[in-house]
Amino acid sequence: MKHVDAINRALSEYLTIPCEGQDIVPDAMRYSVENGGKRVRPVLTLEFCQACGGEAEAALPFACAIEMVHTYSLIHDDLPCMDDDDFRRGKPSCHKQFGESYALLAGDGLLTLAFETLASAQLPAVDICRAVQTLASCAGVRGMIGGQVLDLLSEEGTPDYALLEKIDRLKTGALMEAAVLLGCIAAGVTDETLLNSARTYAQSLGLAFQIVDDILDVTGDVSQLGKPTGSDEKNQKVTFVRLLGLEQCRMLADKLTDRAIRALEDFPGDTAFLASFARELSVRKS
Amino acid sequence: MKHVDAINRALSEYLTIPCEGQDIVPDAMRYSVENGGKRVRPVLTLEFCQACGGEAEAALPFACAIEMVHTYSLIHDDLPCMDDDDFRRGKPSCHKQFGESYALLAGDGLLTLAFETLASAQLPAVDICRAVQTLASCAGVRGMIGGQVLDLLSEEGTPDYALLEKIDRLKTGALMEAAVLLGCIAAGVTDETLLNSARTYAQSLGLAFQIVDDILDVTGDVSQLGKPTGSDEKNQKVTFVRLLGLEQCRMLADKLTDRAIRALEDFPGDTAFLASFARELSVRKS
Repeated sequence: MKHVDAINRALSEYLTIPCEGQDIVPDAMRYSVENGGKRVRPVLTLEFCQACGGEAEAALPFACAIEMVHTYSLIHDDLPCMDDDDFRRGKPSCHKQFGESYALLAGDGLLTLAFETLASAQLPAVDICRAVQTLASCAGVRGMIGGQVLDLLSEEGTPDYALLEKIDRLKTGALMEAAVLLGCIAAGVTDETLLNSARTYAQSLGLAFQIVDDILDVTGDVSQLGKPTGSDEKNQKVTFVRLLGLEQCRMLADKLTDRAIRALEDFPGDTAFLASFARELSVRKS
Repeated sequence: MKHVDAINRALSEYLTIPCEGQDIVPDAMRYSVENGGKRVRPVLTLEFCQACGGEAEAALPFACAIEMVHTYSLIHDDLPCMDDDDFRRGKPSCHKQFGESYALLAGDGLLTLAFETLASAQLPAVDICRAVQTLASCAGVRGMIGGQVLDLLSEEGTPDYALLEKIDRLKTGALMEAAVLLGCIAAGVTDETLLNSARTYAQSLGLAFQIVDDILDVTGDVSQLGKPTGSDEKNQKVTFVRLLGLEQCRMLADKLTDRAIRALEDFPGDTAFLASFARELSVRKS
């Protein structure tokens, strides 16, 4: 996919950290970042920078910082005291590979490195400060961490649609929002209307993504998905499909995708990729 | 102590985070920050700002950010997969009080909030960027986290003096260094000579502090210390006292204290408090 090579190259450079004698944590950080997925968030950062009329290159440190925060959240999420997942994308999760204490520190290290990476960007200091504030606020207790808390708390009860939507808006949407906002900030955008359109795109995309995930867990093809289906039902997880049914979920995903695409109209630069990206995510089979 | 009330008030404001429905993590963050110790690091930040000719008030967000990072490191350090400590300063540790998953997230939340707090300072953006870079670099895998890794690794062997000194320089010294540097940065200092003197003060103080800790574990008075003595020997921990003996340790602590105080000579502002602070730490009984 577009940009992915550049992102991987940059991540690999940021993660080359010479620390004589204590390499195990940098190794664990690299292991988890390199076991990456589609790099959805950093691609969004670069594309939004372009959509605002900026150069994608300038937003690369911001894009990498977002991916580091995403990866740290997965490492900590997989820990025994959280979801206790032994595998992540078909490979042993970080704590299975390196042990729990080093996985904990690898997550901490990535979160810390994310902010160091933001601050290293060749951009005006005032824009870097806005990026630090935006990323911290989206990733913190009023954002992504708050979503994880609600998710943990909801396991004790039966969430309704409003709560499910809120969990997703914080747990997944907040970091998507940070990704697009950092793209805009890298392009020097301060116009609140444009920033709000970016937020709308991110939140609509984030929610549509989760709904499609829930649909695929019911209707997906195991060989295409690369993971077993039916896991939500097995785990008695309350999902959008369980609350709304398949038909309503498909309609909602389409509606959200349309909303995301409409939000792109305000942007001065090329948004063709972002539009087709939203469309593809909604019809994906895996 | 000087500044402590102002620091506690500011911390309390930063930690008043309205998050409807997911208060447990902000509660856990506040619990651990409010179970604070002497606020050594934030006091250093404010004092170094003054020593450089700045207003202590201006450095308050930086000082609070340092204390948040210190507290996050204690929360994660106490977790079962790390030191597995049930108590911290006589109260249940964060995971004992709130459960392991919320303690993990409280640590993550504090680390994230630290950078948000830096970015909120009413200081030139370029100085905030330097503060972000300094704090991230001192707290990350080449700094504090690296020290924790070395500490974990050293449990499997018998560290010598050089390794013990390196562990302390990273695990404790790096954040002390960040504390004093952020004070200088808040005062607008860019002169490398002055920044290096600040580093010398922090590193000498940090090492002296640890050596005195090791001495007190052997010679201290339980009622004054507020914790049992002899724990290092019981845990077969390799300490400075075990490697060098009591007499040499006392001499080394004095030498380091003198070095810290000499490093203050270059500063234009009032350093009387910083000098007596170093002296007091070296002769403390608890």
